[in-house]
Amino acid sequence: MSAPIAIIAGVGPGTGAAVARRFAKAYPVVLLARKPANFESLAEEINKSGGQAIGISTDVSSEESMKNAFNKIKEKFGQDVKAAAAVFNASGSFTRKPFLELSTEEFEVSYQVSVKGAFLFSRHTLPLLLPHVQSTGTPNVSPPTLIFTGATASIKSNAQMSSFSTGKFALRALSTSLAKEFGPQGVHVAHAVIDGVIDIERTKGWLVGQPAEAKIGADDIAEVYWGLHGQGRRGWVNEVDVRPMLEKW
Amino acid sequence: MSAPIAIIAGVGPGTGAAVARRFAKAYPVVLLARKPANFESLAEEINKSGGQAIGISTDVSSEESMKNAFNKIKEKFGQDVKAAAAVFNASGSFTRKPFLELSTEEFEVSYQVSVKGAFLFSRHTLPLLLPHVQSTGTPNVSPPTLIFTGATASIKSNAQMSSFSTGKFALRALSTSLAKEFGPQGVHVAHAVIDGVIDIERTKGWLVGQPAEAKIGADDIAEVYWGLHGQGRRGWVNEVDVRPMLEKW
Amino acid sequence: MSAPIAIIAGVGPGTGAAVARRFAKAYPVVLLARKPANFESLAEEINKSGGQAIGISTDVSSEESMKNAFNKIKEKFGQDVKAAAAVFNASGSFTRKPFLELSTEEFEVSYQVSVKGAFLFSRHTLPLLLPHVQSTGTPNVSPPTLIFTGATASIKSNAQMSSFSTGKFALRALSTSLAKEFGPQGVHVAHAVIDGVIDIERTKGWLVGQPAEAKIGADDIAEVYWGLHGQGRRGWVNEVDVRPMLEKW
Amino acid sequence: MSAPIAIIAGVGPGTGAAVARRFAKAYPVVLLARKPANFESLAEEINKSGGQAIGISTDVSSEESMKNAFNKIKEKFGQDVKAAAAVFNASGSFTRKPFLELSTEEFEVSYQVSVKGAFLFSRHTLPLLLPHVQSTGTPNVSPPTLIFTGATASIKSNAQMSSFSTGKFALRALSTSLAKEFGPQGVHVAHAVIDGVIDIERTKGWLVGQPAEAKIGADDIAEVYWGLHGQGRRGWVNEVDVRPMLEKW
Repeated sequence: MSAPIAIIAGVGPGTGAAVARRFAKAYPVVLLARKPANFESLAEEINKSGGQAIGISTDVSSEESMKNAFNKIKEKFGQDVKAAAAVFNASGSFTRKPFLELSTEEFEVSYQVSVKGAFLFSRHTLPLLLPHVQSTGTPNVSPPTLIFTGATASIKSNAQMSSFSTGKFALRALSTSLAKEFGPQGVHVAHAVIDGVIDIERTKGWLVGQPAEAKIGADDIAEVYWGLHGQGRRGWVNEVDVRPMLEKW
Repeated sequence: MSAPIAIIAGVGPGTGAAVARRFAKAYPVVLLARKPANFESLAEEINKSGGQAIGISTDVSSEESMKNAFNKIKEKFGQDVKAAAAVFNASGSFTRKPFLELSTEEFEVSYQVSVKGAFLFSRHTLPLLLPHVQSTGTPNVSPPTLIFTGATASIKSNAQMSSFSTGKFALRALSTSLAKEFGPQGVHVAHAVIDGVIDIERTKGWLVGQPAEAKIGADDIAEVYWGLHGQGRRGWVNEVDVRPMLEKW
Repeated sequence: MSAPIAIIAGVGPGTGAAVARRFAKAYPVVLLARKPANFESLAEEINKSGGQAIGISTDVSSEESMKNAFNKIKEKFGQDVKAAAAVFNASGSFTRKPFLELSTEEFEVSYQVSVKGAFLFSRHTLPLLLPHVQSTGTPNVSPPTLIFTGATASIKSNAQMSSFSTGKFALRALSTSLAKEFGPQGVHVAHAVIDGVIDIERTKGWLVGQPAEAKIGADDIAEVYWGLHGQGRRGWVNEVDVRPMLEKW
Repeated sequence: MSAPIAIIAGVGPGTGAAVARRFAKAYPVVLLARKPANFESLAEEINKSGGQAIGISTDVSSEESMKNAFNKIKEKFGQDVKAAAAVFNASGSFTRKPFLELSTEEFEVSYQVSVKGAFLFSRHTLPLLLPHVQSTGTPNVSPPTLIFTGATASIKSNAQMSSFSTGKFALRALSTSLAKEFGPQGVHVAHAVIDGVIDIERTKGWLVGQPAEAKIGADDIAEVYWGLHGQGRRGWVNEVDVRPMLEKW
């Protein structure tokens, strides 16, 4: 198989699924998530609607699990599979509690996913993104793109949020460092500060009674990412912030 | 006339012209520049190729001149003309010299254009952008958008560059303040940090011998702005940075 | 006269007066303020308690007024007077109102003081600070220091605050640019982000019922500035933020 | 024993030792370092010159080792020992190499020290700092202070430096979060961006031929930290940057 693929890590009910649907319009997509429930119906939906998707149960913070996932990708798409896009959307659940009540394990949860996970994801996807550089410039071929999903906590560290914000600050540092190293090699690396509540099942009870424009649409984030992917080499954006119309900031 | 227009200030041979061409594919465009030479052939080109453009000789830092420009816009497009987009791309020429050799006039040049000009432009365009809010959501109608062009100096202030950087820092503050005030009213305000050399006639002698990817393409900036304009209310980007692939940062 | 002086612009009932008192323990101080009422009793107080102070009625945003002020300084302290420290603490009163109700004059008030005033102050004080560089290193002689007072609005631009924040963002850009140009020449330039309510007569009605630690003490700011002034050439701080213990940020 | 102590982690030949010497003028100091060679002669020097110091061989990234260290502190100074100051100066050695050549272990080195180490240090020192809050305000008693040493990489993430910068970005997030949580409880938390080469044995070969002012003095950093410690509750600085006079930035 020679068509380049897109790999999305952290496929849940929100941003990850929306990003997968958007990129599936152009590429076969690989869906990585810990729980199969998070990608099974999505993969089926994409496969039924003319796209191509496979899901792989993966713990992004585990070297072993990530190695297995990328072996499966190569089994499926060939040893010389190339990636047109890779999106890291995984995030540890955060614990908001007084610092002195935080266990080391609770503190490290965010690191494991946001930093170690992003490190392993980058190490596995960059070798698939780099060979796609040579295709850039062919009509309708965008530069290969590596995108990281950040949050308000990527640039603002609040009280009782140190676990989450340390992970997100570090993720932003990783994205910038990779952008500077791999940009000149032809891979477009970008970071998105998602600054607001995303409208998903889990946040139904938040901002109740407010208009739809009080929340960020997962599809809107997907469009922003797709827009980043389409940018040419003479005009790359390395960081965006994303907010809904009614956000206070 | 009822079609909404786009207004571009600071139409020169680079970004401004590219932005005008891009937005002219969708809207009648108004081109503001001090020297008619900067918009005459561009307006002709747009008008000949199926678009609609008028140029108005304007000093954005002059209250009188701006008032005249917007009177002409209303004469041409009607008293109730609406704007779908307004792009402020004007910038004072900067003087790089030892601080103690800088005259007050030289220091203030950047303020006059980057800050007072942007203030007057915002004051005149927001009343045309706001009435277009009610059309948002109609199929294919994007939220009205106000975009400001910044530079590396918007976030980094170097030695001997205080005139330019004070203006650009202030412009960024203006953009953020307007985004927070007019965003909830339906106007999408965004700021672009253009971090690199734009490939125009004037910069032909810069970065000589380097590949095309060492400079930013004016057309690429225009595509980024067009992408911002197309974003929906549940996923607005308020700031982007734009770089060419080979930029060191 | 050969003792170096300290020059403080923006001497009012708060920070400026506290800074003047602190630096008057070491240097003759020059107090610049528009209204003589702002410096008269302060100068008297300093002169009576063993220090030396003169006040000069000055509009920092006026070239003419600033030229007169520095002529008076030279008449008083000699044509070859040197400055050990210069503190720019002036700030235009800010108008918080809807952007579209803001007149050009109201918008520009902040620029006139925070930017043009700071520019003129720097242009007049640097020629007095630079000759003091040669004395640095003599026992108990600190490097000459130029300090600018910023605010929360130096790094955060809120809705309806564009006049104030554009001025303060620009002032920060000026401070950084000067630090990079004059630091290597031996002048220590620093910027302070005062992030909180200063406890002065005018703010008596704010944060009522809260402990004293909810507000910043003007004397505490003066100590921070004095600390900056005392730093050696191998450990200069170029920016500090200052908050009271109970500040929420 | 009732005198409050100061605890310094990361005592090496540079900043840590200088900070220890400075704080030892006022408090008994505890020196934490992995290698006894890093604190033995320093402890001896302090004890001989009228101060009081003990060194404890500690791996700050190990829960077990940190627990042992603080047990020893309590054995020595009493179960109800209080801390007037705690300074976290430990830093993993950084590996500058192409990202794809970086092993997981190499990548994580910085996290282990800069983030997990700082987390454990905070968790152990805050319970000793908090009881000292009640003494604040007694003549000559400064608020208890927790200081973290950052670097250029705390705010700038360069190519091939992702291990170091992710750790330092995260450390800054931790410091800010703690400042917001424990500031209102009376503990002054501050972060220092050390932006330049520190003049120590290991950097002798750097910037050769340049004046002494091209490097930061470890003693100068110690003075900055001492200055932070002395600040009153109505004027706390939460972040400083420190540079030598000749630094380019």
